Amino acid sequence: LVLFRWQTQEMLLTDLAAGHRGVRRTAIRMADGRALFYCDDPPTGEDPLPPHRLDDPRPLPDRFAPRPGGGAPVGPQMRYDVLTGDWIPMATHRMDRTFLPSSDTCPLCPARPGAAYQDGEIPDTDYDVAVFENRFPSFLRLPGQDPSEEWLCDGDVLWPVRHAAGRCEVVCFSSDHSTSLSELSATRMGTIIEAWVDRTVALEAMDGIAQVYCFENRGPEIGVTLPHPHGQIYGYPTLTPRTAAMMRQAGHYRDRTGRHLLSDVMEAELRAGVRVVMQTEHFVAYVPEAARWPVEVHLAPRRDAAGLADLREAERADLALAYLRLMRGLDRFFVADDGAPIPLPYVSGWHQAPTDPRLRDLGRLHLQVLSTRRAPGKLKYLAGSEAGMGAWISDTIPEAIAERLREALTEVEEPEVRHV
Amino acid sequence: LVLFRWQTQEMLLTDLAAGHRGVRRTAIRMADGRALFYCDDPPTGEDPLPPHRLDDPRPLPDRFAPRPGGGAPVGPQMRYDVLTGDWIPMATHRMDRTFLPSSDTCPLCPARPGAAYQDGEIPDTDYDVAVFENRFPSFLRLPGQDPSEEWLCDGDVLWPVRHAAGRCEVVCFSSDHSTSLSELSATRMGTIIEAWVDRTVALEAMDGIAQVYCFENRGPEIGVTLPHPHGQIYGYPTLTPRTAAMMRQAGHYRDRTGRHLLSDVMEAELRAGVRVVMQTEHFVAYVPEAARWPVEVHLAPRRDAAGLADLREAERADLALAYLRLMRGLDRFFVADDGAPIPLPYVSGWHQAPTDPRLRDLGRLHLQVLSTRRAPGKLKYLAGSEAGMGAWISDTIPEAIAERLREALTEVEEPEVRHV
Repeated sequence: LVLFRWQTQEMLLTDLAAGHRGVRRTAIRMADGRALFYCDDPPTGEDPLPPHRLDDPRPLPDRFAPRPGGGAPVGPQMRYDVLTGDWIPMATHRMDRTFLPSSDTCPLCPARPGAAYQDGEIPDTDYDVAVFENRFPSFLRLPGQDPSEEWLCDGDVLWPVRHAAGRCEVVCFSSDHSTSLSELSATRMGTIIEAWVDRTVALEAMDGIAQVYCFENRGPEIGVTLPHPHGQIYGYPTLTPRTAAMMRQAGHYRDRTGRHLLSDVMEAELRAGVRVVMQTEHFVAYVPEAARWPVEVHLAPRRDAAGLADLREAERADLALAYLRLMRGLDRFFVADDGAPIPLPYVSGWHQAPTDPRLRDLGRLHLQVLSTRRAPGKLKYLAGSEAGMGAWISDTIPEAIAERLREALTEVEEPEVRHV
Repeated sequence: LVLFRWQTQEMLLTDLAAGHRGVRRTAIRMADGRALFYCDDPPTGEDPLPPHRLDDPRPLPDRFAPRPGGGAPVGPQMRYDVLTGDWIPMATHRMDRTFLPSSDTCPLCPARPGAAYQDGEIPDTDYDVAVFENRFPSFLRLPGQDPSEEWLCDGDVLWPVRHAAGRCEVVCFSSDHSTSLSELSATRMGTIIEAWVDRTVALEAMDGIAQVYCFENRGPEIGVTLPHPHGQIYGYPTLTPRTAAMMRQAGHYRDRTGRHLLSDVMEAELRAGVRVVMQTEHFVAYVPEAARWPVEVHLAPRRDAAGLADLREAERADLALAYLRLMRGLDRFFVADDGAPIPLPYVSGWHQAPTDPRLRDLGRLHLQVLSTRRAPGKLKYLAGSEAGMGAWISDTIPEAIAERLREALTEVEEPEVRHV
């Protein structure tokens, strides 16, 4: 019954993107009702994963069940910051935190074979890529919730409040706890791209989702506490400030010139050339002309695409290679005194067009990778100007970042492609 | 001659704010041409500081002299980020970095008596408060420079470039290397406020300055490398993103209601009460309704004031006490297991109205103190959502911050006022 209800809600959407490159999809419900999706590499004859177990034996209570003291479950909310116009989600809810995995086991590792009880989040004993709803989400839509409902904080008209009725998912890139994305094969990278596409399509179709952001935080230097290679997907219920700014800029530009800003920016970078670090058949990587981070690089398709789901088969295959190559170059950007590469702490995130049909045309797919590392052992901190005024100050110039990154990219081994 | 040139340019402006509370002002030029201003506590009869030496004996070359290889000096530039509309200053210039103080001496400590050569930035052997132009500024206007001049990066119309023709100053709060602002007397705090007022008035009157920001970064956790108690003052040549957002919001609000947004926000916080943490005769401190940081508190005057210079004598005296009390409370916000207070890493910055007469009315003075510390030993990092999307997510609620801060404030000793 649970599986059936889920199928009618979400299966059709996932099916839209299915079939690509032979990635095997399996969808289950976790014991507390959260959705979990496996995406497994295309079979090669060697070591095919057996079918995934479809149940979750953990004694987790339904996350939407009435609270212990009675009363309906409370979801996360967001408050309108009238000073800036931003919506700030905050932990106004307190979901039960029982069954939090103990800190000495990784919640993203697969279940141990034969273990009676699951410490982790993933019920099966192996997987290639697994996506599931975050257990402690900043955005969550409760059953029956109207995502457009608004009320007032302290009854004051200055202070609207809304449900933070979005979606937060976790994407495990590998069952191997100690690897990292840049060490994966191009085949696996292709599977990750398919998972991003699947989830983007599914989340964009949900009521009240304004935009979908697939991203990875990597490294303890930016606060990542789980070393297991993983990323996240946010379905935001409102436009984010950066996206809103890009839409404003692209709208003004279209009004003035009739042209597409983000498309023209990529063309201009190709013309200037000096910040371009990598070109493939379908993608271009460049340090943006006004890069604000100590390390920043964008990766964009040559052809206009609103999001990952618009990429064609050949573009996705090319992207798998380009993405890995870029991340491998970034992991060689800084080297220690003995010449050993220093893995880069980074945020790597996909900017995709908003779902609003009035804005969708103004968006254009691009990846932004940024790092706060400015030298080995040195980080850029967000101090008074950045944190208080939102005014970034760069300690370097984009052309210097590009020069070093081009150099680092020459040392990268080509990603291995497992032919299927 | 140097002193005379300086007097005609800047002395008159400083004089406008002079006379308050008997603070003694002395202005000199540093050896390389930078301006330095001493503000000394009102004399009490005990230990008056002798007059300051008016020269700077260091062998620093004029910072605006032709460069060693010939050619005019190059100042910092800023590039227009067409994706967001922000201007990003960057280190496109490379001023000579000779005479950088060696790392084992503090450049903010006073000169050692009798030393032949000065390692530090301040030529005199003692001071109360000293303000001087940053030697390696992110914003600097070169002689003869037109701050409105614009050209193009790589010749592309998408990418305007401008001089980062602003001003960066350093404010030393004490000659005592090992104290901190919250430990100073109210008398000294009053002198610091006078220094902020003096410099705000002077910088706002300079051609091309859009807004003046007096702020302090405190703590190694946010990247402060000099423990000597000090703050900074930025004269930005363009509106910062946060100020631009506040002006947009306040403008919409005025259009719709005829009222002042920032004034109404303070009134609404007083009405709601639940986030108010401190009230004095002239000031109110509250955690803002949509606080986005793990610790955030605003301090605003009860009366509309565009900036610090608009505060009357009694308001400044009240502010000195209120500011110290607030900072002492914040330094008790987190306590260790043994009950010992843990000094808070923070950014504390004054939002003042922009200089543009069309916007000035929309601004309203308020202090914003924020911290990235979310628990003893734990920091909030800016990860994918914040760094990539500009979308803050709060792990707490403002009312919980307010409750803890009110509690911490009850433990604060009253600042000592040295009666003059």
